[in-house]
Amino acid sequence: MGRLVMKFGGTSVANIERIHNVARHVKREVDAGHDVAVVVSAMSGKTNELVAWASAASPMHDAREYDAVVASGEQITSGLLAIALQSLGVQARSWQGWQIPIQTSDAHASARILGIDGAELIKRFKERKEVAVVAGFQGIHEATGRITTLGRGGSDTSAVAIAAAIHADRCDIYTDVDGVYTTDPRVVPKAKRLDKVAFEEMLELASQGAKVLQVRSVELGMVHNVRVFVRSSFEKPEDIDPHGTPPGTLICSEEEIVESQVVTGIAFSKDEAQISVRHIEDKPGVAAAIFGPLADASINVDMIVQNISPDGKTTDLTFTVPASDYNRARDTIEKARDKIGYKTMDSATDVAKVSVIGIGMRSHAGVAAQAFKALSERNINIRAITTSEIKFSLLIDAAYTELAVRTLHTLYGLDQA
Amino acid sequence: MGRLVMKFGGTSVANIERIHNVARHVKREVDAGHDVAVVVSAMSGKTNELVAWASAASPMHDAREYDAVVASGEQITSGLLAIALQSLGVQARSWQGWQIPIQTSDAHASARILGIDGAELIKRFKERKEVAVVAGFQGIHEATGRITTLGRGGSDTSAVAIAAAIHADRCDIYTDVDGVYTTDPRVVPKAKRLDKVAFEEMLELASQGAKVLQVRSVELGMVHNVRVFVRSSFEKPEDIDPHGTPPGTLICSEEEIVESQVVTGIAFSKDEAQISVRHIEDKPGVAAAIFGPLADASINVDMIVQNISPDGKTTDLTFTVPASDYNRARDTIEKARDKIGYKTMDSATDVAKVSVIGIGMRSHAGVAAQAFKALSERNINIRAITTSEIKFSLLIDAAYTELAVRTLHTLYGLDQA
Repeated sequence: MGRLVMKFGGTSVANIERIHNVARHVKREVDAGHDVAVVVSAMSGKTNELVAWASAASPMHDAREYDAVVASGEQITSGLLAIALQSLGVQARSWQGWQIPIQTSDAHASARILGIDGAELIKRFKERKEVAVVAGFQGIHEATGRITTLGRGGSDTSAVAIAAAIHADRCDIYTDVDGVYTTDPRVVPKAKRLDKVAFEEMLELASQGAKVLQVRSVELGMVHNVRVFVRSSFEKPEDIDPHGTPPGTLICSEEEIVESQVVTGIAFSKDEAQISVRHIEDKPGVAAAIFGPLADASINVDMIVQNISPDGKTTDLTFTVPASDYNRARDTIEKARDKIGYKTMDSATDVAKVSVIGIGMRSHAGVAAQAFKALSERNINIRAITTSEIKFSLLIDAAYTELAVRTLHTLYGLDQA
Repeated sequence: MGRLVMKFGGTSVANIERIHNVARHVKREVDAGHDVAVVVSAMSGKTNELVAWASAASPMHDAREYDAVVASGEQITSGLLAIALQSLGVQARSWQGWQIPIQTSDAHASARILGIDGAELIKRFKERKEVAVVAGFQGIHEATGRITTLGRGGSDTSAVAIAAAIHADRCDIYTDVDGVYTTDPRVVPKAKRLDKVAFEEMLELASQGAKVLQVRSVELGMVHNVRVFVRSSFEKPEDIDPHGTPPGTLICSEEEIVESQVVTGIAFSKDEAQISVRHIEDKPGVAAAIFGPLADASINVDMIVQNISPDGKTTDLTFTVPASDYNRARDTIEKARDKIGYKTMDSATDVAKVSVIGIGMRSHAGVAAQAFKALSERNINIRAITTSEIKFSLLIDAAYTELAVRTLHTLYGLDQA
């Protein structure tokens, strides 16, 4: 017997039939003796409809009113699931963000969770075995008493935060994939599902393009040490043994991973653009002169590579931005030309970033060197390299992305037997 | 300069274009210098959709969860209207029932308003000229912290209650009719719109079938002396002079009606069924034996006629029920036959009730007698009569309804010139 959070996204609650299916999933866990809090998204399509209405009412709208409108989607699902659970004989009640309350910042439409008091929910587990059905994605800013939302994908974050607040043993995220893979199976059919992955690795995998979980929810899981289990929402509730080990990927602390691989996964992204600024003076303040204006323009810079200047006087600096920001980034740098004092700028849009991730790298030397060798044997040119403790990323020509990913996947022994 | 509540129903806010139209109505009053609170319903069709989902989730559902689901409809409209108002440069914010709060009983799905603190709304009128956009139909039960709804048509009640709480000079109800008429204009084309009608008269008109306003909102207006103005939502905001006298009907206290008519209006209802119980013993407890079981079966009894028994021993008792409850009512009486001790029961479904209403009747004798004479001249048989201080009702054969209404309308001088 334990305490579980179960999170279901918009597709899983898209209509009444699917909501009943979710109710049966929940009943299975309740029958197995667990305390359960369920976190739900809005019915698939609902949020888009509400967002469209708010934009039609006025393109430049008050984010506080936007939140009041959009949060209604999760409110509806929470009530409907509570009804569906009760119809199966399961004690349940819905909770809106302001009722628990889930306290957030006042950054409307992208609020951060500040605190959740789980005491009332825990009391109800103990006294009545009552399932808490929590509206995801939303909270309240207590000083103003207004409804807030956490931004897209915020229900994952709600789920992990609720799990931390009620000291849950696990937070199950039901998604349309059955776990986290070593890389994208559409590119590498031999990709394997990972049984376990460390929070740090998942952060790199997620932010590098594995779109299974919101990055913020993984960060939150890491901070509060909430074990997050990614599993499929397509399995029939009746086919699952609640006492068995269901297929899926557990995202947990490093300590829980006994036999860690050197490399856990390969992430990649083709939506990259590279900008190189050449012959800039090698003196303090130059980096600030480049990245300050980009930050002011809300352009997210990813890789940054600057070499030790050979003559101590001038150097080159390369960085990547999302392909969609490419033109704006170039304009921004050109406008700041006098301040930066560069000679030439060159750039490319047909580039891709491939990242190799694994906490085992920390204690293994030469992991990156193997990659350089294998890629050069395939005639894949490496444009830039960045490294961190548990990851290295390579910038290559986009045309070679799939070849590079497959090569590295085999190289590090990730292929399915 | 004054303080106004403006209430718009579902048809008036059915889509974004109409919400913008409502915003222009509100701006007109704000520009004229008024403090304004707007009360809105859910977008037309929304509430039905939400109710259908709750029923599909489970036909026998928890009314608390039903309320959480259904209240979201008004939440959406309130946010959208606040956005639309801001886009016109009008300061505005949305208020959910729990934010004000609008305190209600815990009779979920048909809660009663217990109290509203209007201080914060009034403060914001004074400090910022901020329009309060209030989600109608909903409130909160404070002890449990749960969302409640007031039942169908509850937004009228919300509007009048908000008007009482903020001491509004008037509560404008925008509807798809331009006021209250002497009778149904579809039956009597010469029916006139009333400029003013007393609360007591409106209660009789509304409960007798004039479906302009919720009866509860009229009761509330009478108790708190809130002047309620029924007006058309179809007029273009630009065509209305905010300083002029718009067409509509003011529902107000008797004192405000200087020249009261003897008869104000004629109401009628064809959805009636008549049941007569004959030869019952004329002794205490018999009425209770009949109407107790009907009340237990939630059957609404309307007219009740019992004559003084000629011999002091047995008497007949006639009452009416809604036609839809006819069969259930007969069954209920038959089951209680032994307890009631009647000899025969006869009944009819093709009957109609015609009511003549006017506070002037109090001081005028012979008003009903004129009606009896006029109807007998048309060969209309009167099956039963009940009277109150400001009304009398006649039960007649349904086939004569229109003839009777037209005859009485002319008789009491209500026809348009």
